[in-house]
Amino acid sequence: MASTAKKSKKEGSGGDISAGEDSGLSGKDIYNPETQKALEEIDSCQNDIDALNEKASEEILKVEQKYNQLRKPYFEKRNNIIKRIPNFWITAFINHPQISTILDEDEEECLHFLTKVEVEEFEDIKSGYKIAFHFDENPYFENKVLVKEFHLDSTGDPYSKSTAITWKDDMDLTAKKKSANLKGKQGRKRPFEPRSFFSWYLQEGDPSADDIAEIIKDDLWPNPLQYFLVPDIEVENGIEEE
Amino acid sequence: MASTAKKSKKEGSGGDISAGEDSGLSGKDIYNPETQKALEEIDSCQNDIDALNEKASEEILKVEQKYNQLRKPYFEKRNNIIKRIPNFWITAFINHPQISTILDEDEEECLHFLTKVEVEEFEDIKSGYKIAFHFDENPYFENKVLVKEFHLDSTGDPYSKSTAITWKDDMDLTAKKKSANLKGKQGRKRPFEPRSFFSWYLQEGDPSADDIAEIIKDDLWPNPLQYFLVPDIEVENGIEEE
Repeated sequence: MASTAKKSKKEGSGGDISAGEDSGLSGKDIYNPETQKALEEIDSCQNDIDALNEKASEEILKVEQKYNQLRKPYFEKRNNIIKRIPNFWITAFINHPQISTILDEDEEECLHFLTKVEVEEFEDIKSGYKIAFHFDENPYFENKVLVKEFHLDSTGDPYSKSTAITWKDDMDLTAKKKSANLKGKQGRKRPFEPRSFFSWYLQEGDPSADDIAEIIKDDLWPNPLQYFLVPDIEVENGIEEE
Repeated sequence: MASTAKKSKKEGSGGDISAGEDSGLSGKDIYNPETQKALEEIDSCQNDIDALNEKASEEILKVEQKYNQLRKPYFEKRNNIIKRIPNFWITAFINHPQISTILDEDEEECLHFLTKVEVEEFEDIKSGYKIAFHFDENPYFENKVLVKEFHLDSTGDPYSKSTAITWKDDMDLTAKKKSANLKGKQGRKRPFEPRSFFSWYLQEGDPSADDIAEIIKDDLWPNPLQYFLVPDIEVENGIEEE
């Protein structure tokens, strides 16, 4: 029940009132002078509260930045140990109740070459984060690393961009999927989950409904071991161990 | 896109592994010795990360507590100014898109006697908060203050409790409502909103779905002026000004 620092819904107070000389209400004569004066005093008090909220948000951001730095070496160490376990990430993906829903069969094959996942929040963590997928040499694409980044644009709206995938000849898993979809929705194992891992990865633009990215950042990445070890009971796919 | 401090989903790591002497996996022989060793190292590394997460949460809590204290005098000042404006709170309630939905007509009459609202998070803000409604002498009940508190019980589950209302003779607004409901759902102005302010207030037990309390704490209370000044276009009720 711990609350985060409160921010007022709108910058300043959201009404017709502005404290100071050109009060937006003074010309309207809706309120009597006593009420008018009280409203302006509330508005001024509200500005003081908003300033405190702003300072609270900044301090909390600093704490988060500090701990992101402190956690970093542990995440690196963890990634190095994980590399010693064959198929660690694909196993964790398959065992994860939400991530498993976007893996199609061909993609699972491909993701056996995934050796390292990294989530990194930008130094100014208000502005975003990136997820990097590192791959071994593989039959599907030339890239060694695929990076999906999440930013805020100049107006504060979120957007994402992804490193383009250099598919090897006839190995474009998303093309295959598109063509399968064209052939009357054949070839899909999960009729109610039309997404796939690589179509998620390549999807740019507005990420505000990107639950998969949030799940990777806030659930899988903080503790992947629990998903490697504990298969979700609803997962249909088996995975050969080692 | 600022993230809050991450906590692992389960205390420690959530798997079959426990670092140290009695590893839960050692008897199972599912993994080969190299993988087994790596898993134990990940588990140990995860414990270090969890400890950092715990410290981050504590520091953020301290910042929030500090700013709760710093905001307090401004909220008190604001409440004192608000008292000078007749019907401030009932007007803000009526103008609020969600709170307005639980006000029935008789209750609106009664809430004209509401002079002060206070939201206070407990010193250990993890454990909860309270909302106090202060009333002038009124024809409905004897209480000067009605307090609804939100706590966590010893197992961490949320619950709420409310000061009992000492209704004056034949003035129990909830009884009236009950009897109206018994008479074939007569007397309700909003057929799809069966709740009322006082039935919300008196509802104890599990508050996890208590959106009204959250709205008062996180939306109305941080900036009530905006709701006093800006009527929501969907509000049906008119309110006589002063």
